[in-house]
Amino acid sequence: MKLVKVHITLKEGVLDPQGKAVQGSLNTLGYDNVKEVRVGKYLELTVHDDANIESEIEDMCNKLLANPVIENYSYTVEEGVAQ
Amino acid sequence: MKLVKVHITLKEGVLDPQGKAVQGSLNTLGYDNVKEVRVGKYLELTVHDDANIESEIEDMCNKLLANPVIENYSYTVEEGVAQ
Repeated sequence: MKLVKVHITLKEGVLDPQGKAVQGSLNTLGYDNVKEVRVGKYLELTVHDDANIESEIEDMCNKLLANPVIENYSYTVEEGVAQ
Repeated sequence: MKLVKVHITLKEGVLDPQGKAVQGSLNTLGYDNVKEVRVGKYLELTVHDDANIESEIEDMCNKLLANPVIENYSYTVEEGVAQ
């Protein structure tokens, strides 16, 4: 089994109202040194070993996990728990 | 400026219906080798330099960014863009 860690972030220039809200809340709580917050997604996929796992992950990201119009994704494949 | 990357994940044993839904969708799309999906959050904070930035980040996570009852968090502090 492999552990695939996927990061999905908004592209630069895309407005991030959720990040703005988090930043506002942090500033209200007194953390004035926080200048920007961007919120993304982080997924951990447990996947059976496969020869072309990397191209499959890219397919999954483009089709379902990310919106390639406004989001970037990156991933790492790690050795997972043996089963 | 520092770039703080925060990962927030559900603790082990906590049900993740969002992850289950993503897994179901992936399987429906034909990716049968995906055995588990866990969905977390990923935040990038741009923060002014500060002597005790690490303890501040932990405070922020415990107070606002994560729910320490059901979520774990981890973070890295990197050198950000000079301003």
